[in-house]
Amino acid sequence: MRYGIVGAAGRMGGEIKRAFAAHELCYSLDLDGERVDGTPQVLLDFSLPSALPATMEAVRRFGCALVVGTTGLSDDQIGELKKLGDSAAVVQSFNFAAGVTLLRMILRDFAPLLSDWDLEICETHHNKKKDAPSGTAIMLRDATGRDCPTHSLRVGGVPGDHSAVFANDGEVLTLSHRAISRSVFALGALKAAEFAAEAAPGFYSFEEVLSCGRRR
Amino acid sequence: MRYGIVGAAGRMGGEIKRAFAAHELCYSLDLDGERVDGTPQVLLDFSLPSALPATMEAVRRFGCALVVGTTGLSDDQIGELKKLGDSAAVVQSFNFAAGVTLLRMILRDFAPLLSDWDLEICETHHNKKKDAPSGTAIMLRDATGRDCPTHSLRVGGVPGDHSAVFANDGEVLTLSHRAISRSVFALGALKAAEFAAEAAPGFYSFEEVLSCGRRR
Amino acid sequence: MRYGIVGAAGRMGGEIKRAFAAHELCYSLDLDGERVDGTPQVLLDFSLPSALPATMEAVRRFGCALVVGTTGLSDDQIGELKKLGDSAAVVQSFNFAAGVTLLRMILRDFAPLLSDWDLEICETHHNKKKDAPSGTAIMLRDATGRDCPTHSLRVGGVPGDHSAVFANDGEVLTLSHRAISRSVFALGALKAAEFAAEAAPGFYSFEEVLSCGRRR
Amino acid sequence: MRYGIVGAAGRMGGEIKRAFAAHELCYSLDLDGERVDGTPQVLLDFSLPSALPATMEAVRRFGCALVVGTTGLSDDQIGELKKLGDSAAVVQSFNFAAGVTLLRMILRDFAPLLSDWDLEICETHHNKKKDAPSGTAIMLRDATGRDCPTHSLRVGGVPGDHSAVFANDGEVLTLSHRAISRSVFALGALKAAEFAAEAAPGFYSFEEVLSCGRRR
Repeated sequence: MRYGIVGAAGRMGGEIKRAFAAHELCYSLDLDGERVDGTPQVLLDFSLPSALPATMEAVRRFGCALVVGTTGLSDDQIGELKKLGDSAAVVQSFNFAAGVTLLRMILRDFAPLLSDWDLEICETHHNKKKDAPSGTAIMLRDATGRDCPTHSLRVGGVPGDHSAVFANDGEVLTLSHRAISRSVFALGALKAAEFAAEAAPGFYSFEEVLSCGRRR
Repeated sequence: MRYGIVGAAGRMGGEIKRAFAAHELCYSLDLDGERVDGTPQVLLDFSLPSALPATMEAVRRFGCALVVGTTGLSDDQIGELKKLGDSAAVVQSFNFAAGVTLLRMILRDFAPLLSDWDLEICETHHNKKKDAPSGTAIMLRDATGRDCPTHSLRVGGVPGDHSAVFANDGEVLTLSHRAISRSVFALGALKAAEFAAEAAPGFYSFEEVLSCGRRR
Repeated sequence: MRYGIVGAAGRMGGEIKRAFAAHELCYSLDLDGERVDGTPQVLLDFSLPSALPATMEAVRRFGCALVVGTTGLSDDQIGELKKLGDSAAVVQSFNFAAGVTLLRMILRDFAPLLSDWDLEICETHHNKKKDAPSGTAIMLRDATGRDCPTHSLRVGGVPGDHSAVFANDGEVLTLSHRAISRSVFALGALKAAEFAAEAAPGFYSFEEVLSCGRRR
Repeated sequence: MRYGIVGAAGRMGGEIKRAFAAHELCYSLDLDGERVDGTPQVLLDFSLPSALPATMEAVRRFGCALVVGTTGLSDDQIGELKKLGDSAAVVQSFNFAAGVTLLRMILRDFAPLLSDWDLEICETHHNKKKDAPSGTAIMLRDATGRDCPTHSLRVGGVPGDHSAVFANDGEVLTLSHRAISRSVFALGALKAAEFAAEAAPGFYSFEEVLSCGRRR
């Protein structure tokens, strides 16, 4: 797969290059200009909202697919990406961790069948993390459709653990996710890029990328 | 709810009476005969295959629903229960633990989306358990559609833990079930009885009982 | 081992009889009087403070050992038990769960070596439990000599889980205890009785019973 | 603290520099020669056995302490380090992960008190790891003095989890270690260097470094 990166010099750009080691980087766009070594099949943008117009222009120019993980996009910008989906395969998400996304899907599908079980959520992060509960814990709780107690441990250098603990009088069902490293997001981006490079034009969520195994 | 028990004097009969404490026991059938104190809305049979004819006769007599958890039923007997489903609500399953059943459903639905993750199954039971892996571990592995390594710990008096561990380079997703006590099965029977007492005639699985929250 | 029970008719009396099935019950003392079928080597009292005088009289009469797990003993009563220790082996504790006691010992010995690690305690109990954190969690925290955050989950019918989670930038060390059933306390009493039946006169803690493997 | 590194250009050298960011690097020794910017209080050598003579010469020249984590040292080399301990504080270990070392100490101290509990060990590592059980699992099992079943999961990118699971009829006691990152070893080296810089001459193990909190 030939791919391009917007924000190649940034931290996430570096992660992407590592995760895409088996593929060919043929385009990069940074503050100091663009570098074109070929025609990418897919472009990845995990940079800043201000970069989006240049990114979309490049997608149109190359006739390629797009994976966008930029946070802080406005509703207008999301609207423009949807329009771009008429002519290109566009995958957009604010979280490209596959495991977290799958756990959210499981909770959304199965929490209704566990409505007569007690539920509490537990998450553990490094001691530098200021907010509690974590954004991911809130997202998972929202997926259950329930307002349950949430416990936040802040210890050492833990990258991020999340557990949803369901229990009734005779059983405990625990659904847990643990992040090992930051490469998580780049691996999710790789999955999305492989999907987008093959997909028909459209505006896709990361859930749809992950679910494509289901539909086959 | 007015209910009846076949095999009221057995261990499972005792568990059911405890779990159904809020309901009215008005019929029981045992080796030493039957005792009728009213018309049950639902009959529960967790006894032996040989009791099934008498059970089915009672269901027809009372025009009530049936929950059958008897193990070792023959294909012919299952066929007769299906026929009974034409005129009565019949719930039949070999395992009435809700958590195990839900975990199996989660694995069946989501393992295809985790096909590029590694998977191993780990189970822990008391040191009296002879077989390994446990029947439940095999059932869960079958639900994933994958032939993965399975680890069996046999220590102390653990009633039964099962975990499916999925991992890729950056994340671990662990789906775990833990049995607390034997009341599990009676609680599942209660759920099935409440469902059956209200349901239209039909032959239902325990999965369908648990899924009815989903359809509403 | 020939043993006797004070409060044989109570719940804990029943648990003790089950745990001591391999031994010979030859004495019992209850509200309705005593029953003597032989000379016990050790007497067990897990009843009420008001029973202590009769218990101590019986220990002196039989020249036997004593295991006391009665809660709510006064300082005066503890003093009298210590005096009894001059002529009999007396084991006294307010908690005969071996695992909890061992975890407390581990935390007391090793928390000083983990002083530069973060520490949080997590405990899970059934939803009927009113107090939080649990008495055991407080006892374990005290054993660490640190005032750390404690999280209490109250879900389903969980008998009681406790974890001490230590973490630094590169590692997590988790020390966990899980109660499976109420037989825990009777099993601890058995261990104490076996110790007391062989021990020289003295006033012993349950820790000393558990540590005797160490000293040998 | 002023410190020096033997093998500064290697991977472990880089880790040490990160972990020692608050301290002053004033000496380095590499294949391409040495660089002296001051007199180190402690020298760290996590390189190759062949470097040891030059390392020991530098320790004598500077009159400084030494922390050695080199693997594959011969008995003769260990003997020379012990002799060096007559005039300098020398800390030598083959594993500078504090948590693993503490878990080994806990198991060595407490396994004898758990001799009537069942025990199994479970470890999880990334799928690139060829050996099973892991060297650490074997070391922990040796520390228990028991020959227990050991289970090895090989999934995804897990850096390394180890659990010792003790259970009797009523309780489960689980002692677990989890590595978060490779910085573990450099953090242990830092702890050892801080100890050595202050210590009297002697030949110390990493256990003694970790235990010094106990003696205070």
